[in-house]
Amino acid sequence: MSKGDEESTVFAPRYDDKGLIPAIVTDAKDGAVVMLAYMNAEALRLTLETGEAHYWSRSRGELWRKGATSGDTQKVVDLRLDCDQDTVLVSVAMAGRGVACHTGRHSCFYRRVKPSSQGYELEII
Amino acid sequence: MSKGDEESTVFAPRYDDKGLIPAIVTDAKDGAVVMLAYMNAEALRLTLETGEAHYWSRSRGELWRKGATSGDTQKVVDLRLDCDQDTVLVSVAMAGRGVACHTGRHSCFYRRVKPSSQGYELEII
Repeated sequence: MSKGDEESTVFAPRYDDKGLIPAIVTDAKDGAVVMLAYMNAEALRLTLETGEAHYWSRSRGELWRKGATSGDTQKVVDLRLDCDQDTVLVSVAMAGRGVACHTGRHSCFYRRVKPSSQGYELEII
Repeated sequence: MSKGDEESTVFAPRYDDKGLIPAIVTDAKDGAVVMLAYMNAEALRLTLETGEAHYWSRSRGELWRKGATSGDTQKVVDLRLDCDQDTVLVSVAMAGRGVACHTGRHSCFYRRVKPSSQGYELEII
């Protein structure tokens, strides 16, 4: 990557060796990080074209419109790429129950790592 | 992954096939997402033990204490794992110049994707 790439205005997302790019998802309401998902080129294209967040499900091996079954859809408010165009940051308006996590929570990041007598443990918050 | 794993308090981070886990980094001051980096088990261990963010540099192929050369160190304020323990969310107090990006910017996410006559382009913000 040359220095100039970081100032480029050419849209050139960089996918990994599996054809995926990580997408950090934040709630447009307060900027809180609610999940990390992955997009392939088609998911990113559909996200940009429809304004509704689409991801690639690594576990199911399929394209996935967020909320297609749960109703917890995500409308794109802002979408950015980072300095080397290998990470997406998408700010979304959360419809449905307003939850991003399949556990029914607003955010997937509901467990804090803290020291324990055996090393580390998780605290549900 | 069984349903119970999502409620588990056992610290069991899941690394990918390269031994890495993505870490979303936010500025503790305002919660803004400033970068995405990767940790291997040692980087995560050092981050937890020292309270200073350590990452694995995929481009240099080496462990990296953030700010070791730039002075832009990151003190850990909060560290979480997501529902399936394959993503870290770390909130940091940013020392030095208060920048996370190697371009000298506060955040790596300084380019917005927007429609153009040719498809999409980036807008530096």
